[in-house]
Amino acid sequence: MRAVSDFLYQRGATIYAAAQHRDPLIDQFFMRIEFEEVEIELPHLDRLHQDFAEVGSQFQMDWQFFDLQVPTKMLLAVSKHGHCLNDLLHRWDSGALPVEIVGVVSNHDAMRSLTEWYGLPYYHLPVTPASKQQQQQILDIIAEKKVDLFALARYMQILSARMCSELVGRAINIHHSFLPGFKGADPYRQAYNRGVKIIGATAHYVTAELDDGPIIEQAVEKIDHNIDIDALVQIGRDAECAAFARAVKWHCEHRIIINGNKTIVFK
Amino acid sequence: MRAVSDFLYQRGATIYAAAQHRDPLIDQFFMRIEFEEVEIELPHLDRLHQDFAEVGSQFQMDWQFFDLQVPTKMLLAVSKHGHCLNDLLHRWDSGALPVEIVGVVSNHDAMRSLTEWYGLPYYHLPVTPASKQQQQQILDIIAEKKVDLFALARYMQILSARMCSELVGRAINIHHSFLPGFKGADPYRQAYNRGVKIIGATAHYVTAELDDGPIIEQAVEKIDHNIDIDALVQIGRDAECAAFARAVKWHCEHRIIINGNKTIVFK
Amino acid sequence: MRAVSDFLYQRGATIYAAAQHRDPLIDQFFMRIEFEEVEIELPHLDRLHQDFAEVGSQFQMDWQFFDLQVPTKMLLAVSKHGHCLNDLLHRWDSGALPVEIVGVVSNHDAMRSLTEWYGLPYYHLPVTPASKQQQQQILDIIAEKKVDLFALARYMQILSARMCSELVGRAINIHHSFLPGFKGADPYRQAYNRGVKIIGATAHYVTAELDDGPIIEQAVEKIDHNIDIDALVQIGRDAECAAFARAVKWHCEHRIIINGNKTIVFK
Amino acid sequence: MRAVSDFLYQRGATIYAAAQHRDPLIDQFFMRIEFEEVEIELPHLDRLHQDFAEVGSQFQMDWQFFDLQVPTKMLLAVSKHGHCLNDLLHRWDSGALPVEIVGVVSNHDAMRSLTEWYGLPYYHLPVTPASKQQQQQILDIIAEKKVDLFALARYMQILSARMCSELVGRAINIHHSFLPGFKGADPYRQAYNRGVKIIGATAHYVTAELDDGPIIEQAVEKIDHNIDIDALVQIGRDAECAAFARAVKWHCEHRIIINGNKTIVFK
Repeated sequence: MRAVSDFLYQRGATIYAAAQHRDPLIDQFFMRIEFEEVEIELPHLDRLHQDFAEVGSQFQMDWQFFDLQVPTKMLLAVSKHGHCLNDLLHRWDSGALPVEIVGVVSNHDAMRSLTEWYGLPYYHLPVTPASKQQQQQILDIIAEKKVDLFALARYMQILSARMCSELVGRAINIHHSFLPGFKGADPYRQAYNRGVKIIGATAHYVTAELDDGPIIEQAVEKIDHNIDIDALVQIGRDAECAAFARAVKWHCEHRIIINGNKTIVFK
Repeated sequence: MRAVSDFLYQRGATIYAAAQHRDPLIDQFFMRIEFEEVEIELPHLDRLHQDFAEVGSQFQMDWQFFDLQVPTKMLLAVSKHGHCLNDLLHRWDSGALPVEIVGVVSNHDAMRSLTEWYGLPYYHLPVTPASKQQQQQILDIIAEKKVDLFALARYMQILSARMCSELVGRAINIHHSFLPGFKGADPYRQAYNRGVKIIGATAHYVTAELDDGPIIEQAVEKIDHNIDIDALVQIGRDAECAAFARAVKWHCEHRIIINGNKTIVFK
Repeated sequence: MRAVSDFLYQRGATIYAAAQHRDPLIDQFFMRIEFEEVEIELPHLDRLHQDFAEVGSQFQMDWQFFDLQVPTKMLLAVSKHGHCLNDLLHRWDSGALPVEIVGVVSNHDAMRSLTEWYGLPYYHLPVTPASKQQQQQILDIIAEKKVDLFALARYMQILSARMCSELVGRAINIHHSFLPGFKGADPYRQAYNRGVKIIGATAHYVTAELDDGPIIEQAVEKIDHNIDIDALVQIGRDAECAAFARAVKWHCEHRIIINGNKTIVFK
Repeated sequence: MRAVSDFLYQRGATIYAAAQHRDPLIDQFFMRIEFEEVEIELPHLDRLHQDFAEVGSQFQMDWQFFDLQVPTKMLLAVSKHGHCLNDLLHRWDSGALPVEIVGVVSNHDAMRSLTEWYGLPYYHLPVTPASKQQQQQILDIIAEKKVDLFALARYMQILSARMCSELVGRAINIHHSFLPGFKGADPYRQAYNRGVKIIGATAHYVTAELDDGPIIEQAVEKIDHNIDIDALVQIGRDAECAAFARAVKWHCEHRIIINGNKTIVFK
């Protein structure tokens, strides 16, 4: 911490926010600092990386600099249920998300009109028996558009292990249950059949193991015996939208550090 | 519903609250009515049972009458952690629970002083290799004291299948996780290791299958990376107290109907 | 209750849900029953009204029948902030709201494109010094389209006393604070300046007294010192959408009975 | 920040947790660091104060050091309702609060037995027409016992302006409403009469202006039309216990900085 604050001090940076966390299990220190440098010549980030390299390596840090003026490039994925997509697009459109959305991919054509109303490109990539190709097409878009975040807004296809590994730390999924309860298919029906009194949704980084990546955010809603399966699905969608929007926002504000199978979120 | 309201009307009963629920899966109707009869001779319940029998059998109802003036007889069980016990005893003492507590059983002696301060008998029944006997001792107390509700306020012993079956619908447990996530032992450590962002507690009727009985109530608390395992346990206890107290209260107010593996709670 | 269940029984109606409530302060009984009549000739409602009139007047009931197959006709109002509008339109479009939206009125043109994308008419009625006329135009639309519910989705104009009285029980507003805290203008700034730790939103029926009508639903979100005024506004909007959507849904499902300055919501 | 981390670095301190916040309205920086010094001679705090004085004055800081090994000395106050007192005493007894409780003062004798069961002194100081004297007696205890925190656990007496000013930043009250709604007397009845759908409680530092001090924490509970005034009071008490316990804990862990009429809580 001292080396970092020394570094910033010597450059005349103004610190706007800072937060630290120490994980006692692994005796490691995590840190996030928001600062402004007014006098440095452009381009900021290259210079910063160059200058900090020595400090960073001296203290064996993993470190990154982000320019908060540069919005995160996000590619969205959706299948047939558009509530999370609609929610994110509206937040972005009303200035609430620091992102540049490069487009929406889908295995269905259902969300084309909504997407195009927002002036965004829609990539309809149907899943055929040869679905490997489809995932490659998505990876191509990600590469070509220099996508920072692949956000799965109820995209109901399982990503291949290869795709998961290419996108480690860069893909966020919303699972429609309060993980680790009700992994896998049709979690709302599982929840209804179990008779739980609270349902939830979980936003997590995608990993090769299904519904098991580092959790970023969870949201819950109370239900009772009056709530039938259809109503339960409707209520659950509110939890999905809430958890997903917060997770995406925090990621794009560079507030999240992945720590093994957990996340540190400096809100 | 009409048969019941006719029955009550003819007796001149005043209805104070009523609620119905139809489970579409099994096409069955559930109903709870709170009413007052002012002119009937004592003893109420016997007469009501007698008089209603015909109506009930005609419509193939499962039915029960309870006198809300008569508090539910509750036996508490606890091991070493006294937070739920302390919470319930204080609620009872301040008039917030319509129960008569007949005593506290424990496999430890730790909560004797607290229990006796409240003027209640404490049964220290250590668990020995011959634990079958210990469970029989509990069943004996339940029989002798005519206990309506056996409330397990963090009682960390697994009840035998026989005990579970004797107490079906009459024993409420508080499990310190948001079921069905983290069944079994040390759920807080499981939650900590999984990196969840919300923890919870579940009050449920005891069944032979561990942590799998009909859920009555669940409570949750948000956590984040700053919360270490000790802090997590502390926070979780608040969820335990909340869910357990509500479940016990609703049971004692005769608001709960068990419907297979679910509960209907007419709040 | 008995008269009503007798009435329904004699018609061979099947009851799907029923709930009652007695307000002890005024010793009055409130009741909602969902039922199905299969054999009756059309038109249902006229016959029901006719047939029930005698029962209703005998017991001095206030009563209404609604056909759940007939969606509630809703007119929306919005100013410049589209989050509640966008949220409701998506819910309606995805089949989650039992309404027929007859259009959107606004004192600005900002939400025209969104509205028209959903295939709905947009009425841009600017507020001029002669605003009485504007409100009359809205009332004309309400009359012409036979609007059942006028839903103010962040419509930032105060309705005249006359308009309020014409729309009593038919207009729902979303106020962006946790009433009765922070009535009036700019409640988020009020909340920020006061340093509260939870913010909220309140959906209520419109009455002539500003922000003082019967409350239908409230929603809250936790905040802390890190949340600046812009972030607070963003977070607050989630509470607004949640409370407003639930209130509108319950109204359209005929679950709400206004009881003086309060509401009874049979969820 | 750099001066502080330099200072700690030079002493070989290990930082366990750190958090910063900048208030943009007043352009001021707030900071909390938890650290451990292993080699320094005792007494720690005096040396630290002495050594840091120069750094602190150079940068015009307001600063304080606390030894987390030394529990906060707390005096509790209560009137007739013991739920918050009972809750805090149990937390303290089970090791969940880093405090040394020096006793309980009350204008009633009702909580003597509970207090004494915990082995704590009980000061029954009735409020007479000459109540100035009573408040002086409390201040005398506070002075004599070197009390760090005066925690008003539903103490239903208004403190004099002089007492408030003597205890600025050292007295926490729990108000049984969601401030700023329902200030003053009988907030639950106010809430019931207004027909709100959520009730709450507010823990705040005491200031001369009633129920208007810096808010530390708020808690809420959902209610509905079924909840009569007695049930509402019971439910509200859970919110009181929750908000109060968290506020007291954070204060005793030195996580709170008062910033004008607001608080910064470094959780």
